[in-house]
Amino acid sequence: MVLKQNERFDKLIKENINIIQSKEVFSFSLDAVLLADFVKIPNRAQLKIIDACSGNGAVALMLSAKTTHKIMAIEYQERLADMANRTVIYNHLQNKIEVIHDDYKNCLSYIKADSVDIISCNPPYFQESSHFLAHHSKYYAIARHEIKITLSEWIAVSAKLLKMGGKLFFVHRPERLSEIFEVLKQYQLEPKVMQFVQPKVDKEANMVLIEAVKCGKVGLKIKPTIVVFDENNHYLNPVRSLLYGG
Amino acid sequence: MVLKQNERFDKLIKENINIIQSKEVFSFSLDAVLLADFVKIPNRAQLKIIDACSGNGAVALMLSAKTTHKIMAIEYQERLADMANRTVIYNHLQNKIEVIHDDYKNCLSYIKADSVDIISCNPPYFQESSHFLAHHSKYYAIARHEIKITLSEWIAVSAKLLKMGGKLFFVHRPERLSEIFEVLKQYQLEPKVMQFVQPKVDKEANMVLIEAVKCGKVGLKIKPTIVVFDENNHYLNPVRSLLYGG
Repeated sequence: MVLKQNERFDKLIKENINIIQSKEVFSFSLDAVLLADFVKIPNRAQLKIIDACSGNGAVALMLSAKTTHKIMAIEYQERLADMANRTVIYNHLQNKIEVIHDDYKNCLSYIKADSVDIISCNPPYFQESSHFLAHHSKYYAIARHEIKITLSEWIAVSAKLLKMGGKLFFVHRPERLSEIFEVLKQYQLEPKVMQFVQPKVDKEANMVLIEAVKCGKVGLKIKPTIVVFDENNHYLNPVRSLLYGG
Repeated sequence: MVLKQNERFDKLIKENINIIQSKEVFSFSLDAVLLADFVKIPNRAQLKIIDACSGNGAVALMLSAKTTHKIMAIEYQERLADMANRTVIYNHLQNKIEVIHDDYKNCLSYIKADSVDIISCNPPYFQESSHFLAHHSKYYAIARHEIKITLSEWIAVSAKLLKMGGKLFFVHRPERLSEIFEVLKQYQLEPKVMQFVQPKVDKEANMVLIEAVKCGKVGLKIKPTIVVFDENNHYLNPVRSLLYGG
């Protein structure tokens, strides 16, 4: 049996991948889908790609459909890393994705500094203090709150791993943007592309996608805002086609 | 005669104000209209309001329709300040707007530090070096390029003038956002609200509106993106109603 208790398969339709999910732990959501689409992978003979804070591997799995290069998916929580690993095996993607169960902060002991081309990260969004106790399990708490790793920490590790010109792609909450800019600057990561996501055309953005380049020069592009739902709560493009293909 | 050579009246329709413009100097455009709408003026007995880099006074004139308090409109270029002043007199707004022909950097010699509630600013967008020579007159060059005042300078002056909790509202180009965040942080101005403006639904943003609060606490809202034109190049709301009323 591939599935353990209380687990199910969900389908990444566009990529035709079956992904193991469970209500007991943090499931991937639209953030991961939009991040995977936002990541640009250049066409080069050699590329080192990392997906940090990988959870059950959703972003790494979607990225694997966009490149022939191998992706290292790093996840702190053993339960989630185990789900990701079984998903990789079930989908015969062992040559494309290596799941590493470890603290991202340890990476530099086995991945060389200044060696990575692309890092994607769907990090915990919330500071530890904020509504921490509201969550029903430690799995959710660790995935959503900066308990095991903070904004500064995962950005610092990423900056060290990336080579000059290497790119960090991540998704976060707009309310933390001024901290994000400050920390990126601190680690010589220059924000080059941002894209905001609004639930509806008349609602405030609740997500931001960011591409930052190590030692990049100043100059930021704001891609067209993504609006998720129309007034009848139906998915609008490009979200609809990211979720359902076509 | 109110108008001098090569000048004309344009109408601020929503405010029913006639504004003196001239092709020879920098005319106000959509930036000013969106900035004036973006500025929030609280309902208080006492308020000190400044419009910096005021040009021919468009923002100050539009703000005057939103408040009973007086607005100090400060403009470096004598020709533009003179046009603004004649517009104020022509529209009988002398009790609402005081036009000051001066370098904004001198302000602190006659406006007390930590005394201002609201500052609006439609500053020069471009660094001095960039396509400076392309412009056909020094009036345009000074209004559009950081020749007489830089981003750091007008933000520094604004930060000194504002009281704790006082608000700076401005419009700028998204490509300079990382510098903007850095300089705001340097002067204890916390970005609290941003709104991006796209020419069309599928185009990159070419303007950003920002509200920053002196010593404000961290936490940024991204208001719904404004899209200016539909696919047939007709104005969409809210821009249409800002320009034509109704």
